[in-house]
Amino acid sequence: MSAPCNCTHADSQSLTNTNKSFQHLSPELQKQYSDPQHPANLICELCRLFYDNNWVTGTGGGISIRDVEGSNPNLVYIAPSGVQKERIQPWEMFLVELPDEKLLQTPNDIPKELTKSYKYKPSACTPLFMSCYKMRDAGACIHTHSQNAVMITLLLEGQKEFKISHIEQIKALPKLKYNEETKKVEKIGSLEYYDTLTIPIIENTPHEEDLTDSLQEAIRNYPGTSAVLVRRHGIYVWGETVWKAKVYNEAIDYLLELAIKMRQTGIPLVKNTST
Amino acid sequence: MSAPCNCTHADSQSLTNTNKSFQHLSPELQKQYSDPQHPANLICELCRLFYDNNWVTGTGGGISIRDVEGSNPNLVYIAPSGVQKERIQPWEMFLVELPDEKLLQTPNDIPKELTKSYKYKPSACTPLFMSCYKMRDAGACIHTHSQNAVMITLLLEGQKEFKISHIEQIKALPKLKYNEETKKVEKIGSLEYYDTLTIPIIENTPHEEDLTDSLQEAIRNYPGTSAVLVRRHGIYVWGETVWKAKVYNEAIDYLLELAIKMRQTGIPLVKNTST
Amino acid sequence: MSAPCNCTHADSQSLTNTNKSFQHLSPELQKQYSDPQHPANLICELCRLFYDNNWVTGTGGGISIRDVEGSNPNLVYIAPSGVQKERIQPWEMFLVELPDEKLLQTPNDIPKELTKSYKYKPSACTPLFMSCYKMRDAGACIHTHSQNAVMITLLLEGQKEFKISHIEQIKALPKLKYNEETKKVEKIGSLEYYDTLTIPIIENTPHEEDLTDSLQEAIRNYPGTSAVLVRRHGIYVWGETVWKAKVYNEAIDYLLELAIKMRQTGIPLVKNTST
Amino acid sequence: MSAPCNCTHADSQSLTNTNKSFQHLSPELQKQYSDPQHPANLICELCRLFYDNNWVTGTGGGISIRDVEGSNPNLVYIAPSGVQKERIQPWEMFLVELPDEKLLQTPNDIPKELTKSYKYKPSACTPLFMSCYKMRDAGACIHTHSQNAVMITLLLEGQKEFKISHIEQIKALPKLKYNEETKKVEKIGSLEYYDTLTIPIIENTPHEEDLTDSLQEAIRNYPGTSAVLVRRHGIYVWGETVWKAKVYNEAIDYLLELAIKMRQTGIPLVKNTST
Ligand SMILES: [Zn+2]
Ligand SMILES: [Zn+2]
Ligand SMILES: [Zn+2]
Ligand SMILES: [Zn+2]
Repeated sequence: MSAPCNCTHADSQSLTNTNKSFQHLSPELQKQYSDPQHPANLICELCRLFYDNNWVTGTGGGISIRDVEGSNPNLVYIAPSGVQKERIQPWEMFLVELPDEKLLQTPNDIPKELTKSYKYKPSACTPLFMSCYKMRDAGACIHTHSQNAVMITLLLEGQKEFKISHIEQIKALPKLKYNEETKKVEKIGSLEYYDTLTIPIIENTPHEEDLTDSLQEAIRNYPGTSAVLVRRHGIYVWGETVWKAKVYNEAIDYLLELAIKMRQTGIPLVKNTST
Repeated sequence: MSAPCNCTHADSQSLTNTNKSFQHLSPELQKQYSDPQHPANLICELCRLFYDNNWVTGTGGGISIRDVEGSNPNLVYIAPSGVQKERIQPWEMFLVELPDEKLLQTPNDIPKELTKSYKYKPSACTPLFMSCYKMRDAGACIHTHSQNAVMITLLLEGQKEFKISHIEQIKALPKLKYNEETKKVEKIGSLEYYDTLTIPIIENTPHEEDLTDSLQEAIRNYPGTSAVLVRRHGIYVWGETVWKAKVYNEAIDYLLELAIKMRQTGIPLVKNTST
Repeated sequence: MSAPCNCTHADSQSLTNTNKSFQHLSPELQKQYSDPQHPANLICELCRLFYDNNWVTGTGGGISIRDVEGSNPNLVYIAPSGVQKERIQPWEMFLVELPDEKLLQTPNDIPKELTKSYKYKPSACTPLFMSCYKMRDAGACIHTHSQNAVMITLLLEGQKEFKISHIEQIKALPKLKYNEETKKVEKIGSLEYYDTLTIPIIENTPHEEDLTDSLQEAIRNYPGTSAVLVRRHGIYVWGETVWKAKVYNEAIDYLLELAIKMRQTGIPLVKNTST
Repeated sequence: MSAPCNCTHADSQSLTNTNKSFQHLSPELQKQYSDPQHPANLICELCRLFYDNNWVTGTGGGISIRDVEGSNPNLVYIAPSGVQKERIQPWEMFLVELPDEKLLQTPNDIPKELTKSYKYKPSACTPLFMSCYKMRDAGACIHTHSQNAVMITLLLEGQKEFKISHIEQIKALPKLKYNEETKKVEKIGSLEYYDTLTIPIIENTPHEEDLTDSLQEAIRNYPGTSAVLVRRHGIYVWGETVWKAKVYNEAIDYLLELAIKMRQTGIPLVKNTST
């Protein structure tokens, strides 16, 4: 992994898009994107981090952030489809408003100097991200093609769940419970060391958007989960805020990496505590 | 992998060649190399990235870019041979013009202050790169000594193809088809999740330039491929533009890495869908 | 691993907390945190390094430094609990004074502009860190969730010690001996190549603070150790100064990584020298 | 691996030693160390790179450069012993003159503000480095504790040579031959793809300096080698210049990494070409 660079300059700009690019934007957008904590900038920062971790190789994977700390927490920023994730710029995001997913802004509106008339499409994961927002009030949703995620689904071919217990890192994940009154899944604490973390595995489909039904079904059937594995494809992870989603994703990938090593040396993933 | 540094300064300069070096260049060249999107600068940037990925260890591997977005799309930039790829400078490139491969510029012409009289030779891959340009209208060609590429050819000793199917990352690669009318291989979309990606494997030869015949034969025999594996050596990958070539190369290396892990745990690379 | 960035600016600031943040601090604190060698800054620097090494994924692990070179060597800086270690800031530390562990400063005292009213808690490792300071006069204590540490404890299930001998890197670790007169464990040199490095393994507990008793017991029973492994959890490593602790931790992790590879290929960790 | 940072500032300074440190040096030394190509600076740069590659974990390993391009090519710079290699500074080097190894400069002479009275010792590898300079006219000598080097010597327990053939990367290494007239080993080209690279393995000794005899014997017995493996310890690699030594070391480590994978999957390291 790669800690954030300590430089205080140029947070929101990639190597090949120098400051000059900003000049093509309206003063309003320039101001917006000068805040490194703006969701559009955080998407760029995290995509670079995920690229360094081999989670978004090529143009795979993606991330979406809901502006839960902003004045309108219904605003959702989504990275575009088919672009190199480590090189996206804040002005390349799609912006939609919940609950109707009304499209407020697209990168196709911005000055041609910046886009070279490239025709952007929102990430194919969009309906999946929306499911996490609507069904779980998520603040951010991460999708990676992590090799650990793909490998564990190959090793668990035919099984519908990944389970692991008795590893300290499990405690990084939230304990969730369906509240009969509010009809919502709510966080009631963190998983304990001896708890079994269970992540459902759904089968991949030829088109990413066709995963929506089975992802929603998995979210419904597993009120305790913060993630869904997609066989031969990758993983979806969400959290209350972008930072929680990041931490959950890191902790899960750590556990998947460890689980693969455990399988390879014949160590059971769930500890038999009856003996 | 290593996302581009966010610094806005000094894109095209290595640690050991400070800004002062530029002063030895003609004003025209200085202006040229001040554009980070110039093919010569992109070669430097990508070589540093490939070095971080262990794809061009020592002085191995290389990259060439055709200036498809420039005023003369027949111009081809080629990194020199036998130099440390992560330290090359924009003025160290060879420049040739297609279709005759007329040599327009060599790093041996530039001021001695910059080269210390080092005698440059164009990459030994040059005839191989040219084959990709001529036979496939490529915009860039990448050659790496990736350990994943070498290992898969060792694991597939005696076999002439690498095949993999039913992995999401396959969709990052182009679907190509020979067009009977234009007599050209054309991109007609992307591979589907359930498609089988096939990459031919050719045998290595003592001298890199002697690979040309078998590489050309493989390109002819596999109109659907964007890459050729060279046994006990590495891989050649090309694309319509430098960024496409980069994305294809990343996606293929991801698939090769996964394939090695799959082989090691007895998981078939091509999914049997008849059962 | 990731060598320190060469930039001379902004040592103590993360990507998402620009220089402006400093302005909220008192002039006294501003001055303090402008010294990159200040323990609070070193904690930030090392946490970023440990994150790059996958030792503090998510919010796991931590580090504490006693100000052994400062005017009051009883001052101990402790990173907060449950935060992303690669993003902590110097003003987010807890400061306690030995031997009574009197709390002198908490990040909850600092301007709300910096903390967004986040309610900090000291690391759950605090009593464990304190054990190292009190029982061993340590100058710093590191706790990681290193996969190598976890894996070796899984491979050595049922065993209470990790042992390795005849590897050059062992010489990086100190030779310690209990001094009957001073009643203290003292460094009497470095381990030799042919010495056996022994690290005790204790069992994990649901709550990190409950490890204190067994950690203290291990420290008492193993006067020669500079580290304690915690099964299915990670490792605690300490040293006379922060840099010694860092070096010991690196050397031990190197040896654990090697030991896992040796086990996987059937090479005994302790060389049989009788044959 | 980690390509050199593109920043043009502060090449020769670590995170924790800002520019101010330079002010303690004499104007002459300040001028010297302002050249990033100065051997003392190159040692610092390469140590940071080797640290990123896990080759000099803790305080292990080291590097020495002979100033072959300077006015006195008998000057040899040597990194100090027992310090963190990624943090050394140009003024921390020992400087000796060949052939008598006369000590010209030690870091113990420099201003106390820089060293905090730390008592430096030259690297324990010094007599080994000197052997490479004297017996082979080397321009630089690298010593790492690379896990690949250690692992291959463990896998080849009882054998006195590492051999590999028919891998393209072998061509990065020099073909050397003893010249009966000059009584020197001279470079006569590069190894060919089908050549067998042979690196002798010597047994480790409790004290690094005691390796000298067996290292010299190996150098004498293997006129074709540019490296010596030390069982359970690491590797020594040398070259005509610092950059050649770096390239050879990278190529050898690549081959060792590949060889370990080949052994683990039962692929012979030397290809049987008789069948
Ligand atoms: Zn996907
Ligand atoms: Zn090659
Ligand atoms: Zn812990
Ligand atoms: Zn050594």
